[in-house]
Amino acid sequence: MTSKRRTFLIIGLGLIGGSLALALRRKFPRARILGLSRESRKIALAKKRRLIHGGSTKLSRVVSGADFILICSPVDVIPKLILNVDRLAKPGTVVTDVGSTKKEIVQAADRARLKRVHFVGSHPLAGSHLTGLEHARADLFQDSFVFVTPTRKTDRKALRSVSFLWKRLGASVQMVSPEKHDQIVSQISHLPHAVASLLMQSIDSKALRFAGSGFRDTTRIAQGDPRLWEPIFLSNKANLIRDLTRFKKVFEKLLASLKRNSRPVLRGFLKAASSKRAQI
Amino acid sequence: MTSKRRTFLIIGLGLIGGSLALALRRKFPRARILGLSRESRKIALAKKRRLIHGGSTKLSRVVSGADFILICSPVDVIPKLILNVDRLAKPGTVVTDVGSTKKEIVQAADRARLKRVHFVGSHPLAGSHLTGLEHARADLFQDSFVFVTPTRKTDRKALRSVSFLWKRLGASVQMVSPEKHDQIVSQISHLPHAVASLLMQSIDSKALRFAGSGFRDTTRIAQGDPRLWEPIFLSNKANLIRDLTRFKKVFEKLLASLKRNSRPVLRGFLKAASSKRAQI
Repeated sequence: MTSKRRTFLIIGLGLIGGSLALALRRKFPRARILGLSRESRKIALAKKRRLIHGGSTKLSRVVSGADFILICSPVDVIPKLILNVDRLAKPGTVVTDVGSTKKEIVQAADRARLKRVHFVGSHPLAGSHLTGLEHARADLFQDSFVFVTPTRKTDRKALRSVSFLWKRLGASVQMVSPEKHDQIVSQISHLPHAVASLLMQSIDSKALRFAGSGFRDTTRIAQGDPRLWEPIFLSNKANLIRDLTRFKKVFEKLLASLKRNSRPVLRGFLKAASSKRAQI
Repeated sequence: MTSKRRTFLIIGLGLIGGSLALALRRKFPRARILGLSRESRKIALAKKRRLIHGGSTKLSRVVSGADFILICSPVDVIPKLILNVDRLAKPGTVVTDVGSTKKEIVQAADRARLKRVHFVGSHPLAGSHLTGLEHARADLFQDSFVFVTPTRKTDRKALRSVSFLWKRLGASVQMVSPEKHDQIVSQISHLPHAVASLLMQSIDSKALRFAGSGFRDTTRIAQGDPRLWEPIFLSNKANLIRDLTRFKKVFEKLLASLKRNSRPVLRGFLKAASSKRAQI
């Protein structure tokens, strides 16, 4: 990130891609921001709202001018996009992504023996249940938390560039292995998403009108876009199955303590959960 | 609620009792507000903060002067308190409670053949994971929702008084039977509390430091006071066991769809949960 005019290419113009465009424009006012989307409507909207300087629905039209590429697409599409980018980008281009799982994506990149680009996996813990370019915000990454997931094959200079970029956008960066990353997010994001969705699916629609702030908060994330979450769940299947199984064990204990009217077990469970939550 | 000087007695000075005191002082500026608590510290604090005009740790000292009694104690204590109040109150006193379950409490009152007081069950859907007198707020019931749960035995005049009181405090009142009430709150409050607590108990403490807003929201209610929640769970055991069993069925389906890599089932599940949540 020197003072010469950089060109950033953002692939995928949803909430994260759009917010990245806004944040980059603010933090790198001299840089050019290009956008790629399968929908020309989104390119037009992003241009109109001054998120990007230019854009296209065709990768070949925008990729060769980019110094830095940020892939903001659903996790199941990212591995393929990295390969496509590698065929067309100029040598030395730094590529990162914002996918919610990392093992599958980073392994695919490592195995692909990329020729032109240096890939570094990222995952900003930013977002919202409100998806889409319309909800993009320049400050989405300010004070947020970003995982960067290098491996032994990761180019060190590219790693520094990617970390530097996130820090410039206001985030704090945590480096972990892709495997460790997926274990962490299974617990703090994918399991909660599954549980919030299960909760929604196990109550009567009629009771919903009495839902107060507690219920709203507990289920808010279940509103997330299913087209993003299905590939996330499948990409992190092994960890999620393990965590669901763990959840099930505690669940069975609670159910048994209720059936047996076991006050000490029930109270112990509620106490432990309450004091653990108070730690956050 | 005429213009003569009414005396309200609030039994239990926690978040709800304290907020009721503040709200009553604001809405009935001429009324006298008395408080009863097992802890003299709370009486002193409530007096100092001008929540109550007077109070005691002994029921006999405050009950006979009251026209209207609001019981804000844990649900397992309320039935006994109603009986005690009935022995000491002046004839015609209206008594309500704010307990999170209603069947057990209202049945106890109905069966007790109360001699002096008229009991009407209430449950304001107001509150917070922050408990205690310190967090009391005069506007806690403003724009809130209150269940009032009459039975065939409920005195109609007392029922009107209780409904009127909640409305004056800014709440909207919904009348349902105690049984129906417990079914509804099991779904919108007790099951979510159980699930949020289960979630807390099934993740590693180490992962907690990466918890973002999604995780925080999903688990917020788990911080609730275990001394209040244990008796709530036990009082609404039958409904909660039924709803947990229902949750378990959806859970098993989700787990199976992940294990079988079944995209259509997984996507259908996430879609249904997301659109149901969007209805709120």
